[in-house]
Order: sequence, then C-alpha cells, then structure tokens
Amino acid sequence: MELEEIKYLVENKRFTELKNKLKDMNSADISEILDELDDVESVIIVFRLLDKEKAGITFSHMESDMREKLIHAFTDRELKNVLDELFMDDTVDLIEEMPSNVVPKILKAIPKEDRKIVNELLKYPDDSAGSIMTTEFIDLKENMTVEEALKRIRKIGTDSETIYTCYVLNEERILKGIINIKDILLSKKETTIGTLMETNIISVNTLEDQEEVAKMFDKYDYFALPVVDHENRLVGIITVDDAINVLQEEVAEDFEKMAAISPTEDGYFETSVFKHAKNRIVWLLVLMLSAAITGNIITQYENAFAAVPLLVSFIPMIMGTGGNCGSQSSTLIIRGLATDEIELKDIFKVLWKEIRVSIVVGIVLAIVNGIRIMIQYDDMQLAIVLGITLMVTTTIAKILGCLLPMTAKKLKLDPAIMASPLITTLVDVCSILVYFQVATSIMGL
Amino acid sequence: MELEEIKYLVENKRFTELKNKLKDMNSADISEILDELDDVESVIIVFRLLDKEKAGITFSHMESDMREKLIHAFTDRELKNVLDELFMDDTVDLIEEMPSNVVPKILKAIPKEDRKIVNELLKYPDDSAGSIMTTEFIDLKENMTVEEALKRIRKIGTDSETIYTCYVLNEERILKGIINIKDILLSKKETTIGTLMETNIISVNTLEDQEEVAKMFDKYDYFALPVVDHENRLVGIITVDDAINVLQEEVAEDFEKMAAISPTEDGYFETSVFKHAKNRIVWLLVLMLSAAITGNIITQYENAFAAVPLLVSFIPMIMGTGGNCGSQSSTLIIRGLATDEIELKDIFKVLWKEIRVSIVVGIVLAIVNGIRIMIQYDDMQLAIVLGITLMVTTTIAKILGCLLPMTAKKLKLDPAIMASPLITTLVDVCSILVYFQVATSIMGL
Repeated sequence: MELEEIKYLVENKRFTELKNKLKDMNSADISEILDELDDVESVIIVFRLLDKEKAGITFSHMESDMREKLIHAFTDRELKNVLDELFMDDTVDLIEEMPSNVVPKILKAIPKEDRKIVNELLKYPDDSAGSIMTTEFIDLKENMTVEEALKRIRKIGTDSETIYTCYVLNEERILKGIINIKDILLSKKETTIGTLMETNIISVNTLEDQEEVAKMFDKYDYFALPVVDHENRLVGIITVDDAINVLQEEVAEDFEKMAAISPTEDGYFETSVFKHAKNRIVWLLVLMLSAAITGNIITQYENAFAAVPLLVSFIPMIMGTGGNCGSQSSTLIIRGLATDEIELKDIFKVLWKEIRVSIVVGIVLAIVNGIRIMIQYDDMQLAIVLGITLMVTTTIAKILGCLLPMTAKKLKLDPAIMASPLITTLVDVCSILVYFQVATSIMGL
Repeated sequence: MELEEIKYLVENKRFTELKNKLKDMNSADISEILDELDDVESVIIVFRLLDKEKAGITFSHMESDMREKLIHAFTDRELKNVLDELFMDDTVDLIEEMPSNVVPKILKAIPKEDRKIVNELLKYPDDSAGSIMTTEFIDLKENMTVEEALKRIRKIGTDSETIYTCYVLNEERILKGIINIKDILLSKKETTIGTLMETNIISVNTLEDQEEVAKMFDKYDYFALPVVDHENRLVGIITVDDAINVLQEEVAEDFEKMAAISPTEDGYFETSVFKHAKNRIVWLLVLMLSAAITGNIITQYENAFAAVPLLVSFIPMIMGTGGNCGSQSSTLIIRGLATDEIELKDIFKVLWKEIRVSIVVGIVLAIVNGIRIMIQYDDMQLAIVLGITLMVTTTIAKILGCLLPMTAKKLKLDPAIMASPLITTLVDVCSILVYFQVATSIMGL
C-alpha cells in the first residue's frame, strides 16, 4: 500500500527515495494519501519535496481540514508558491472554505494584482456561475491571423486553465465568437480568426445558477463555457471539471433532501455529531408530530378493532405499501424534473401514466395478498377488504407521488423537499382512512 | 418559442428561412426541438436542410425512439452521411440501442473498414470501459519533433474526437506517454515529443467498470482517459462528456434502487405502463409480504391493546420515525460509499458516529413527544413508554442504516439495494417489538 510506503519513507528520513517515488505519482493520488496521513509535520515534509507546480495541484485536490492545517504550518514563502499555482477559481474556493481567521494570511500571500480579481470573484452569490468561474482564458481578436493567434496562445497559454477553447473579443471585451484550438491548428496560417470562429455562442450569465450551468455541459458536450456580464462582456470561463463537481454536489443534496436531511456541503466525516443531529432532527420532528394525525384517525375506529383485533395487524402492511408506492413515483418524478426529462406541462401525461401503473400494480398486490390471507386465515371478507384498500391506497399514493413534486416545482420550491417522507405521511393518513372505512362498511362494524 | 417557429416554417414550406434559422442554432438545441416534433416527415425535412456535419451531431443528440423512426425514413445515402459524422462510440451506442431489425440497415451503411472496428467494440461487455470508448484519437511517436507532431495532428485531427490530449505509442502500439496539445504548442519546434511527454500515465483497462472510469474523471480532472488492453496497447479513449453521461446514468440507477424500483436505462416516458409496473412490483411484493411479519408480531400483543386501545394509535408514529431515521443513515452511507468518501474499513468510525447521533436525536424526539403526550393526554406513564421506545428505535434504525449498506458492499452487492424500503421493513419489526415489550412491562399489561 502506497500510504504505508510513504509513511515509512518519511519516518526513516529517506528523502531521496521519497522524492523519486513522488515524481512518479499523480498529484491527485498524492493528495489522497496526504489526506490520510494524520500528522501535519509529515505532510509538510512531503510538500517540501514536491516541485512547485505539483505542490500547487496537490494542494488544490486536498480536503479542507488538512488544507487549513497546512496553511497554518506553511511559511509565507511556501504559501505564496502554492497559491501562485492555483487558478483563480480554486483560490476563491479556498478562501470561501477557510475559517475567517485564516483568510488574512491567504489574502496577504496573493500577489497584489490578483487580489483585486479575487475580491471581485468573492462578491458573486454562492451557487452562481460567477462563483465557480475562473478568469484565466485565452482571448483573441477577430482580425488576427491563425499565425498571430498561435503566437498569442503560446504567450499566455501557460497561465490559462484551458487552451482548448479560445474566445474572440472586440475592443469592449464583448464576446463575438468562439474557436477551438482544433480549428486553429487545422487551418492555414493566413486565415483570419473572424472567418473561422463560431458566432452562434452558448454562454451563461455571471448570476446563472450553477446547477443550470452544469446541465448545459451535459447537454452541449462542451469542455468549457464562457461567462458574460449583463453587457455581454466576457468575464470568465467555467471548465467541465468544475461542472462535474457541481453535478456531484447537487446530486448529494437531492439524496439528502429526499431522505429528510437538511443538506450540507461538508462530507460525512467532516460534519460533527451535533451538526449531523441538527441536520436530521428538523424533519424527524415534523414527521413525528404529523404522524399524530394518523394516530388520531386510528382512535376514531377503536370500536372496529375492538370487535376485530386482527385488523390492527394489517396497519403496517397497508402503510408500508402505500409509502413505498408513493416514494417510487415521487423519486421518478423528482429525478425527471431534475434532469429536465419531465416538465411542468407534462403533468397530465405523467398523471395518466401513474394512474395506469397503479391499477396494474394494485391488482397484482391485491391478488397476491388475497392468496396469502386465504391460506393464513381462510377469510374471504378480509381478503376483499384488504384488496380494495390496497388498490385505492396504491392509486392515491402514486397520484400524490407525482402531484406533490410537480406542485413544488410550480411554486418554485425544490421538488426534492416533497420527497418520500412527506409523501409517506400524507399517504399514511389516506390509507388508514380508506382501510378502516372499507373495513367498517364491508364487515358491518 | 422556437419549436412553434420551426413547425410554422416547415408547414408553410418556407425552407430558405428555415435553413437560415437552423444555421444559427446549436445542434443540441435542434435535436431537442426535433424530439418534440412528433411527425417524422417534418423531422426529415429539417434534416435535409442541415449541412452534413451538423446533421450528424444533431442525430447523435436525439432520443432513441425518434432515431429509430429516422433510420427507417432515411435513404441509404442519407443514413451513410449521418453515420460518417458519428464517432465510433456513438455508432456503437446507436447499434446497441436499436431493435435488431434496424441493425442490418445501420451496419450496411457503415464503411467496410469501420465495420470491423464497430464489431470489435460491440463485443465489450455492457458497462465496461471498452463499451463507451472511441477509437479516434491522435497517436504520436516518441522520436517525433514538435513540428512533426503538429503536422500529424493537422493530418488526422479532423477525425479525432479530441486533439487536446495526444498519445505517444511505440511500434507495438504500447502506450508510452501522454502529451497535451498545450505542452506541444508551448514548446520549441525541434523539441522531441519523448522529452515533453508525461510518462506517469493514468489509464484504464478495457474491462474496467464504467462507473469506476467516471469516478476517475472526477478525481483527476482529465478531459480524456486512455483505454488499454491487457498488454498495455492503446485501443481507445474515453472523453469527459461520456463520463458525465455515465455519472448521470449511475445516479439515476441509485435513485431508483433506493426507491425500490428495478433500474432501467430508458427514460420515464419511453418506458411503457407495463414495464413501469413490472419494475416496481417486485419490491412492492417483497416488502408487502415481509410486512406480514410485523403484523404477526402485533397479533401477539392483542391483549395489550385490548386493555389500552390508545396504544394502537402510536404505531404509525413509532414505525414512521424509525423508518425515517434508518433511511437518513442509509442514504448518507450509500452516498458516501458511492463516492468513495466512506470505505469498508471506516465501519467502526461510522457506527460510533451514528450511535452518538442517534442518542442526541432520540433524546430530542423523546422530549418533544413527551410534551405533546402530557398536553394531549396528561399521562406520564405513556410519555415514558413512548420516550424509551423512540430512543431505542432511533438507535436500532441508525445502526441498521449503516450496517446494511456496508454489509452489502462487503458482499460485493450494490449498497443501494439495501436502501430505505428494506431497512424500513426491518426497523418496523424491531420498533414494534420494542414498543409493545416496553409498554407491557411498564404498564404491567
């Protein structure tokens, strides 16, 4: 295991070997190992053996708690070297992540000319395109020839996050066109950029929601998207690796919301026990108290289950099946809304589909359960009561499972909030009502 | 709305206007509109107005049912033109998606030399790196100079899916190094590729699971990953846009599994009512029948709730809270396992964290519920019974919520399968047992 090997080399001060070992490793792998080395002293030793560029990339891949420790441990010179290698968006991420007592040390280590840009970037709202963009890109002019463009790319390329896509600006820095390095390289020296560039530009505004931006990468298969201000001036670019991070974050958030957890950006282990408890308790309380409604309904039918105590034993099955049916539908709808496969205008199409599905599912459940009841209790009346209840419950659950997320969307709320647990509670109320109503009328209780 | 406009132009045969309109549109947007135009005749008309390259890209973005209709409607010449523009991986995807009666027509339209490659690619198992790779990449030799390399890139660049990363191969086509176009462009003409290339290569095997491959893009921030066979010969590359698709697919699959739905690759609307019902019924049946266990436990305590009928009304609350606690934990653990944030060796760390969280959560729930009981029923004994039950249930639910997914992972099963509904059923059994056991002993029933 590489972690053990590196630990061993550090502890035995075999630095030449360690240095050679690190040379052959990828920065992302190094950072993973450093995150697991608990001791900052060892991490600092490893860092001092990395060349400047690799140290920067390794640092940008590390987890925030270790990064904080490192910033404290770095000399001013070392911190400056690391920050020099970061792209603007990574520097901004770092500052946003760090506690306020560390920020002055970071800002001091950033070169004066960059400090202004960083401060500008810090002003963009969280989750906006501006907050994840970088300002290091290749800008060209329309009247440049391919030869001149290549010269410019060679000049400013080292500092750009990507040279794959270049941006053609006019004097006012308004975005006029986009050109891929491929098209530049495959064209004749004398051709002007203006004749080669793509003028049908897909761009995003600085204030665009980052989730929408990430979806655009999925749709258009781009490596980078230009970010423009309200006057269509190019202010930055977002690269596909940042889009992947956003997609992963948003998915994690949806999972948490759907499991009735208040979403956080921190990882599982980085979140303290009390924070975890806090994130989970709100919905648990809401759902616990709302379950009291179901409970109160049950008390209304005390006479029914006093007469036929067996009725009580089917409560878990009725409630469980209803809840599962509801969360099946809501999950599919929430996911469909998140990926834009389902839109608000599809509501009747979705409803009609869910109703038909619930009829099929309800009939199968009623039959299978009926067979079980006949075998276990040989009671046709009970089988019929449960069969009707299952069919009605299934249909109500599936209808709620598609209506609730779509209503949330319509009200500009996050559909994921309306997920399984909330639907389960509503379905519980309905199914218990249906169950006892059907039971009392058929059994004449 | 653009859909309306295009419909109007097609219907009124204003083809020159339509052609100009299409010229200014992005292929991904065009394909979105064509997917919504239900009528194939109109879609074909639009296709005939697109230039060859745009037609190819537009086709590659479209949904499979419309693609199938189009293939039937295309002349052999038209199909050939479209397929010419597709990269190998898109052609292979197309063949895998289409029903078997359409495949011969597609294969016939592929040029002979490509047909062999396509057949090779089709042999890779589903979900493997080989099945999503493309064979169009730039290969260079170690002894080439930068000038020669640029010449080769200009020569074969048009047919490559990306020219951003180039691959350095030896005579046996074994991958020796990787070089970015950036490093080539920023170096002197005479420099040899061998001195510039990165030899510390991150590559994947053809049989590697596509989900692992997608995670590597997230980790290493690459635009493309090389795919090698068992002899380390380069056989293809995977680009980041395909990785994003895989990530999205896997996420959708996890959502479905966690909501007790058998996962499918088809979209919501593309799946028929019976297919939907089939995907959902299996788990519903399993869970419905397993709820019978909870039911049977309840019948054991018939005397208890005959004596205190109010006890029945808390069944939904106890079961609901237990289920919600369990699915909170399992969702966090499943997600953590999926993103590699949580590993199997962390099991005791996770368990210890969940136990502490459940103690905090359990106490809060017990107190709040106790207050409600005192207000509603003024019954201290009942408040104590429910308080103890809530604390024990919460703890059991959280422990199961982390043990089950981790056990699944250990057994090399998908942790998502062990998600909410299954845990809910287990938690139901435990919580009902705890509830009636606590109630009967404290209340002396």
